[in-house]
Amino acid sequence: MAQAKENNGNGTPSGAKSSASGEGRSAKPRRPYHPRRSRRPQQPKEAATPLHIYPLGGLGEVGKNMTVYECCGDMIIVDCGLVFPDSEMYGIDLVIPDFTFVVQNKDRIKGLFITHGHEDHIGSIPYLLQKFDVPIYGTRLTCGLIKNKLEEFNLAGKTKFVEITPRHKIKAGCFTVEPIHVNHSIPDSVAFAIDSPAGVVIQTGDFKIDYTPLGCGPTDLSTLAEYGQKGVLALLSDSTNAERPGFTATEQKVAAGVHNLFTQARNKRIIIATFASNIYRVQQIIDLAVEEGRKVAFSGRSMVNNTAMAQELGYMHIPEGTLINIEDLNKYPPEQVVLITTGSQGEPLSALSRMASCSHRQVRVGPGDFIIISANPIPGNEKSVTKIVNGLLLLGAQVIYESMYDVHVSGHACQEEQKLMLSLTKPKYFLPVHGEYKQLKKHALTAASLGIPHSNILIAENGSNVILSQDEIKLGEPVAAGAVMVDGLGVGDVGNVVLRDRKHLSEDGLVIIVATVDNRTGKVLAGPDLVSRGFVYVRENESLMDGAQSVVEMALDRCVEEHVRDWNSVKTRVREALSSYIYRRTKRSPMILPILMEV
Amino acid sequence: MAQAKENNGNGTPSGAKSSASGEGRSAKPRRPYHPRRSRRPQQPKEAATPLHIYPLGGLGEVGKNMTVYECCGDMIIVDCGLVFPDSEMYGIDLVIPDFTFVVQNKDRIKGLFITHGHEDHIGSIPYLLQKFDVPIYGTRLTCGLIKNKLEEFNLAGKTKFVEITPRHKIKAGCFTVEPIHVNHSIPDSVAFAIDSPAGVVIQTGDFKIDYTPLGCGPTDLSTLAEYGQKGVLALLSDSTNAERPGFTATEQKVAAGVHNLFTQARNKRIIIATFASNIYRVQQIIDLAVEEGRKVAFSGRSMVNNTAMAQELGYMHIPEGTLINIEDLNKYPPEQVVLITTGSQGEPLSALSRMASCSHRQVRVGPGDFIIISANPIPGNEKSVTKIVNGLLLLGAQVIYESMYDVHVSGHACQEEQKLMLSLTKPKYFLPVHGEYKQLKKHALTAASLGIPHSNILIAENGSNVILSQDEIKLGEPVAAGAVMVDGLGVGDVGNVVLRDRKHLSEDGLVIIVATVDNRTGKVLAGPDLVSRGFVYVRENESLMDGAQSVVEMALDRCVEEHVRDWNSVKTRVREALSSYIYRRTKRSPMILPILMEV
Repeated sequence: MAQAKENNGNGTPSGAKSSASGEGRSAKPRRPYHPRRSRRPQQPKEAATPLHIYPLGGLGEVGKNMTVYECCGDMIIVDCGLVFPDSEMYGIDLVIPDFTFVVQNKDRIKGLFITHGHEDHIGSIPYLLQKFDVPIYGTRLTCGLIKNKLEEFNLAGKTKFVEITPRHKIKAGCFTVEPIHVNHSIPDSVAFAIDSPAGVVIQTGDFKIDYTPLGCGPTDLSTLAEYGQKGVLALLSDSTNAERPGFTATEQKVAAGVHNLFTQARNKRIIIATFASNIYRVQQIIDLAVEEGRKVAFSGRSMVNNTAMAQELGYMHIPEGTLINIEDLNKYPPEQVVLITTGSQGEPLSALSRMASCSHRQVRVGPGDFIIISANPIPGNEKSVTKIVNGLLLLGAQVIYESMYDVHVSGHACQEEQKLMLSLTKPKYFLPVHGEYKQLKKHALTAASLGIPHSNILIAENGSNVILSQDEIKLGEPVAAGAVMVDGLGVGDVGNVVLRDRKHLSEDGLVIIVATVDNRTGKVLAGPDLVSRGFVYVRENESLMDGAQSVVEMALDRCVEEHVRDWNSVKTRVREALSSYIYRRTKRSPMILPILMEV
Repeated sequence: MAQAKENNGNGTPSGAKSSASGEGRSAKPRRPYHPRRSRRPQQPKEAATPLHIYPLGGLGEVGKNMTVYECCGDMIIVDCGLVFPDSEMYGIDLVIPDFTFVVQNKDRIKGLFITHGHEDHIGSIPYLLQKFDVPIYGTRLTCGLIKNKLEEFNLAGKTKFVEITPRHKIKAGCFTVEPIHVNHSIPDSVAFAIDSPAGVVIQTGDFKIDYTPLGCGPTDLSTLAEYGQKGVLALLSDSTNAERPGFTATEQKVAAGVHNLFTQARNKRIIIATFASNIYRVQQIIDLAVEEGRKVAFSGRSMVNNTAMAQELGYMHIPEGTLINIEDLNKYPPEQVVLITTGSQGEPLSALSRMASCSHRQVRVGPGDFIIISANPIPGNEKSVTKIVNGLLLLGAQVIYESMYDVHVSGHACQEEQKLMLSLTKPKYFLPVHGEYKQLKKHALTAASLGIPHSNILIAENGSNVILSQDEIKLGEPVAAGAVMVDGLGVGDVGNVVLRDRKHLSEDGLVIIVATVDNRTGKVLAGPDLVSRGFVYVRENESLMDGAQSVVEMALDRCVEEHVRDWNSVKTRVREALSSYIYRRTKRSPMILPILMEV
């Protein structure tokens, strides 16, 4: 806390300005700062070749992470994620990065390197592969998850996968990429040390530092330190928890918390919701179930798929006879089963939400159930999670959902871990990534508090062209970047006009006016008919609609009298007449569509 | 924490069941429990007359609080609030209680008693007064706020107001109501001790217990205790913070926190956003400004109105020459002004949000600004607040928004305060009110943990008919209750059908098919024309729309060939043909409206 306060105290605005623009005066650092670059031989040729970093997603937002590196004409991409639409994006299913820049440069791209298998890092890969083919480098589990995804798009097979393992370097054009093991909420996560003629850049991906993780070792601090000693040109580090002081608790804490609850739940059926990708968490729940002699069933498509694949790849171990099919759930007494389900974020169609609304095919929730939500709501999901909790409580179940029960820990580094990452890698330049602007800003302040000069900290944007050399960091001409909306099969065919219409329709509905007119006399032969949707109950508002009808008729008559023949002006006059009438009567502005048919 | 855990551990379901139904077996209380009712003389006549409590809002929800009390044929209403629409209520402005029940009984209603001046307690009054007239009882500030509201509806004047003060009893039919001073985030808040022939009920309204509040004394514990001694039949208590252990911090803490920040902000302009109704907080900011020799300006309609009224009524004191008009803000150097503004909840049209988007007429935000958001986001507002914070940071301002800076405290009681309220009033029966089901549930568990038998705790619903006597609590026939949606001038004219259409339109837009047909031959004379809105960019999807055109034409032709004359079946066939074509091509289901004009 104190630390955080202190950060916030020191000269933010100048910091903000300089880092935001990347060319601020170097504010005097509070502590002397000596990045160790000495041991790196400085061939002039190399120093002459700058490295370009183009973030195409993940800056100023949480999600659709994608970064392009360019040096000596070669390019590599790190991650290719998606983001889910915000409430203003009516009807949009998901949002992917704008691929214009990478498509333009597709022949120079040597590979797509993936840090881990979460949607915000792999979700857009199928859409990228629809544009061009590129070999994918990822750890075993990550590749497995991507392959699953590609199958849904019938893109499997045609893509080349290269399975990577930590500490084994890969050459890609002029780049040498070393995967470094990091802790996160999904197994097989890595950071990348990207060596280029211009120097080494470390991109952390999503990470936290867990000294006592489950199922794997702690983040590979020594390798990070080693790079720090040799000299790191720049660090791109995860900013998700930049606002949180202290350390993220170890996954062991969850183990303890859940174990506690299992003992409380003694004679009840346990239903536990968590992220399907959090394999270690699920494994840990299974282990507890085995300990208590309970059978385990899975519910929710992604939970079933992920756990199946995790077992297949050996990331999950379920003793013979423990796993049961959800169809058979009710054959066992409550105290002998654990149901592991999706829906911890309150997704409306998820298994848990169907349980809460009594619409789940196999599971009826009641007083005999002990339900644990082993996750925190992602910002924006609070209300839907609350809705589910209320529903489950109303059914008489006991529901554990508050953070105080230690049933969840974040997968991201807090301020102290971010400081450790900075201190180990000793980067000359620092670029906070993965986060809203407020988080990038806080992360920048944290770096500044360690003595990195403000002028060496750059808060870039999606589409920035960051030019790095041993001597300077600067911004070049930005490249195409943005949000491409996916609606059903349509990629990018829904834009602002369509969204504006959807918003308008959602707020006040619409009124359609149809009339058949004689294209010589302009006289109305049929209609005008008024049809409304999403506006008012017509039956209960007859007087209103009758009034509307005559307003339209009058407007049309006037057009005939005044010999207005240009159909557009007729439409305009009708629209204006009706909309002002409706607004006067209802203070609403439905969309008004006059349609004239000529015969 | 421990307490909460313990609560959650002990026999919830049975508790849940019994309290939900109000007829569970009395689970053995952990501690002996002796409500002191001895001193209350028990005339048989009185015992015979039950008291009815009808909650019409505020149960299973946060907002639109309204409760009706009935005894010996007389009725009084406590509070009449509104709630803001949830994300599924497309285009709805606000939601009010269903007044059917009170309208049916309007001649028996002796008065409308208001606990305090927040929207969720007074917001629906104008709509109630449009149905029938009823005298309003409230403290001075509360009446002032209601009068402001009525003026907007041109309802002022015609309504009778009775100004009440704590400790002064009011007779209303067979009821005697005593206002009891409580702490809350708005001055002049009261609880009500409602004495009836059946016994005394205490309704807390919104409250917290602040031993060192600003501008007023602490919650009147002694009067509450006095009633507890005499014997309280039932307590209806605020559940908003029922999930939070411990005590809500004192408003003094905010004073300290803000003072701290003022000294940090030394050479900068201070912009501070908070709730316009939190008069004490605003006063406290003004005092600090005066201390630092800064001028004060207000921004935001409600901030300007509320502070003006607060001064007029003597709830706010601004020394001569301190207050400046926002038009003159820029005439003063930054370090000499404090701007107090609305928008702490990220409301899209609020002053602060206009500052963040550079669209505020008088205020341009920049690196010279120190901005404090003195409020926590109400659940559901997190994203819009974040959006504003990002915007302000991007403009280079320093922004203090995290809870850790002690710039805000809740206005509601946490678990320990709720226990104190229960322990002082010693109610025989307990009804948690004001909150979502999960909060009511937690509050019920807190009460149970104090030894109140589960069978004496009732979690009612909106529309419940709670029948209370010295001997029992039970549920009678429920009454009409629900959510009435207000859209513009329309009250209740938007219902589920309209909302469903708006939702549908918002997700995939619509396609209209218009054709003029010969009513004898059924031949198409003009059209079919296709018009779409909120569906796709037509220009960029010509092939799709051309395909749609011919699909429709074919469908119509087939109808002619097959001599289908019933227009509805024609429409159905066209609709089905087009919708399956569109779904195949786009995986979307826009609303499809075939309109046939006969000539």
